[in-house]
Amino acid sequence: MSKKEIPYKIYLEEKEMPTQWYNVRADMKTKPAPLLNPGTLQPMTAQELGAVFCDELVRQELDDCTPYIDIPQEILDFYKMYRPSPLVRAYCLEKKLQTPAKIYYKFEGNNTSGSHKLNSAIAQAYYAKKQGLKGVTTETGAGQWGTALSMACSYFDLDCKVFMVKVSYEQKPFRREVMRTYGASVTPSPSETTQVGRKILAEHPGTTGSLGCAISEAVEAATSAEGYRYVLGSVLNQVLLHQSVIGLETKAALDKYEIVPDMIIGCAGGGSNLGGLISPFMGEKLRGERDYKFIAVEPASCPSFTRGRFAYDFCDTGKVCPLAKMYTLGSGFIPSANHAGGLRYHGMSSTLSQLYDDGLMEARSLEQTAVFEAAEQFARVEGILPAPESSHAIRVAIDEALKCKETGEEKTIVFGLTGTGYFDMVAYEKYNNGEMTDYIPTDADLEKGFAGLPKVEG
Amino acid sequence: MSKKEIPYKIYLEEKEMPTQWYNVRADMKTKPAPLLNPGTLQPMTAQELGAVFCDELVRQELDDCTPYIDIPQEILDFYKMYRPSPLVRAYCLEKKLQTPAKIYYKFEGNNTSGSHKLNSAIAQAYYAKKQGLKGVTTETGAGQWGTALSMACSYFDLDCKVFMVKVSYEQKPFRREVMRTYGASVTPSPSETTQVGRKILAEHPGTTGSLGCAISEAVEAATSAEGYRYVLGSVLNQVLLHQSVIGLETKAALDKYEIVPDMIIGCAGGGSNLGGLISPFMGEKLRGERDYKFIAVEPASCPSFTRGRFAYDFCDTGKVCPLAKMYTLGSGFIPSANHAGGLRYHGMSSTLSQLYDDGLMEARSLEQTAVFEAAEQFARVEGILPAPESSHAIRVAIDEALKCKETGEEKTIVFGLTGTGYFDMVAYEKYNNGEMTDYIPTDADLEKGFAGLPKVEG
Repeated sequence: MSKKEIPYKIYLEEKEMPTQWYNVRADMKTKPAPLLNPGTLQPMTAQELGAVFCDELVRQELDDCTPYIDIPQEILDFYKMYRPSPLVRAYCLEKKLQTPAKIYYKFEGNNTSGSHKLNSAIAQAYYAKKQGLKGVTTETGAGQWGTALSMACSYFDLDCKVFMVKVSYEQKPFRREVMRTYGASVTPSPSETTQVGRKILAEHPGTTGSLGCAISEAVEAATSAEGYRYVLGSVLNQVLLHQSVIGLETKAALDKYEIVPDMIIGCAGGGSNLGGLISPFMGEKLRGERDYKFIAVEPASCPSFTRGRFAYDFCDTGKVCPLAKMYTLGSGFIPSANHAGGLRYHGMSSTLSQLYDDGLMEARSLEQTAVFEAAEQFARVEGILPAPESSHAIRVAIDEALKCKETGEEKTIVFGLTGTGYFDMVAYEKYNNGEMTDYIPTDADLEKGFAGLPKVEG
Repeated sequence: MSKKEIPYKIYLEEKEMPTQWYNVRADMKTKPAPLLNPGTLQPMTAQELGAVFCDELVRQELDDCTPYIDIPQEILDFYKMYRPSPLVRAYCLEKKLQTPAKIYYKFEGNNTSGSHKLNSAIAQAYYAKKQGLKGVTTETGAGQWGTALSMACSYFDLDCKVFMVKVSYEQKPFRREVMRTYGASVTPSPSETTQVGRKILAEHPGTTGSLGCAISEAVEAATSAEGYRYVLGSVLNQVLLHQSVIGLETKAALDKYEIVPDMIIGCAGGGSNLGGLISPFMGEKLRGERDYKFIAVEPASCPSFTRGRFAYDFCDTGKVCPLAKMYTLGSGFIPSANHAGGLRYHGMSSTLSQLYDDGLMEARSLEQTAVFEAAEQFARVEGILPAPESSHAIRVAIDEALKCKETGEEKTIVFGLTGTGYFDMVAYEKYNNGEMTDYIPTDADLEKGFAGLPKVEG
């Protein structure tokens, strides 16, 4: 327990900010399984991956040995514009809950992309620029990742082509306009601009698109144009590496005040935030230096960890990407239409999947009305209107704090507040109007997704 | 000039945060003219004002002698949740402009209300609570002030009734939903719930409302219900007092690094941000300790300072509020329909009006396409998507920095970045699509507004 007085917000000084990313794979006894070539079922080589991703990012993707990797100066300079992010002591929430628990959250929402996604976007844009590329392509759903990438590309004067799930493009025009303000081109997906898009439109006229389909289009757009590569905002090892800056800053801030957390909680869609937040703490656990409880929180309507299978699967609907071994619901799985809370990816980071399978972390799933209830409660006492995704972590943090109230334990809880909900007001409106419903897929629903899993030993 | 290395962001420590507000009127030789009772044309008494405003706020409104006023502990605690706000060195903007000027901005957008408005909202809610009131009423246009007040009321468990200009209520539903998430009731104005609303609806069926009309409704709702008072987010002396926290923090951060600004720039609608930002610096100037250049920036389509008259005028369309002596375009003046950049109030803070009339500050007016051009440029290099209001100050800061490039002067420029533009994407979309136009009212347009000025000596 700390003896110093803890301020509401702990900000590191610039000189205390991390200058290296931490690669948790280096400390894992069982390494995450390699990406496989979907044709040969052999591990993807650097050369094969280099057709899709930037060279330096491929090196980072494949490197499971080097524990620390220097953050280039240009990225450090960009980080200084919006980092360090504050580690906030939730004094007001503690008071409201009347809990003896001590609650902290690492808040990543104080930048225009509205989330932690910018931490990896700027790194990926930097390596693309350094390689002399013209631009990058990507997909985005509601637009968080696309916005982050647009900001990063604008900073390095790189072209940025975003394929945005058509239903979001039409119904959520505001993030689209943020991306355009940063100079990105935004194409509703599926589109006529790619072969895979035309194929999907022919097979499913009038479709409003999906994330998996937008990934397929973005990959095709990158590989069919000279000087372009594809970039991805979650799931991959490289992304977790970049996002380790969240955990490293969190740990430095806690160490500064001699605070040792009992548990660390994060929401999990593809795993980039959770993986980044827990990395350095998980490293200590893996090296046997200290034990922590880690809790991944996911929506009950897209329960990759809690009800998925640990198997090789496609990362996208169009099946153009490599196979990854991960907890998955099958690449054909799409959460029910009433799902408003984000975190809708069918799979999960291979690294986190391996750690979970090894019993090093726990997972919980939540129904969305309970999540929005926590979001509202948090907003009213802590002032910040949270993203629905982040609110999954808030819910579990509150639940754990209430357990402490019962038992009288003074546990220290840290959770990741990944972003703000300013562009999610349609979901909040549904909640405010009492029109939000829950849905949990049946076992039969899940079986349909599992039926599409490729037949791969692994 | 500072000799220490200046970080990208200067954050004060909690213990360095101001614990008193500064009341610039105490140092003014010519005090701002008093509010007048529109019936008797006599200065409003504390008793008369007490029917509309909370008692303590009335005291603050009328006190033009006390230079420093303690900030109550409850407000200090709330400030700690989102303050201190960073003073940012715009290294990337300087580099982009290739200017020898040193540019700093005080960024007030890192809170859910998205602007500086929260600084006064929490104070006004606190005094209402302390007086044992049930709730407060107010008006809001696009929703920045209403959101801030909703957050503040939710924190102190006060009822909050917001009258929102109907066109915004319908076309900009997102801030409305933020307010509802914080538990406020939001009524489109004009409404059937007040006499003045019914009168306006009868006279102008189908009207989409105006700020002046929403003020009249909110005042009526406060004065006709027991346990309610009206609160206002700008213009008033009390609001400038609360907003002095912006300037005090800015000055403390600059002093810490021995930086002395040459000029301080702020956008001006009703004057709350500008007044708050410049207060302590203006104090030094008034006391003859140090000279600064102050620049108020306003839209060319609503040019209160640059083309208005310094006269007593009504603060609202319904003429239920006291008369204030200020630079004004007349209470009937409404900016042209194409105006997208905020700052649309017809009048201006009495305090700032007096300072401007005394030649202690300058004012400039800008057309909105030039403002959005600066907004885009700033967003792309500094990462933050600014509010259209704030972008007025950005434009002038850039212009001044470019002058330094020509002359080679290393001037230090400080400007107020009052908020973010996340809820202004309709305006950005117009700009992105090349559909934004400019409009400058003709002298004849302005004469119509001036014709409605009350006949008062002063």
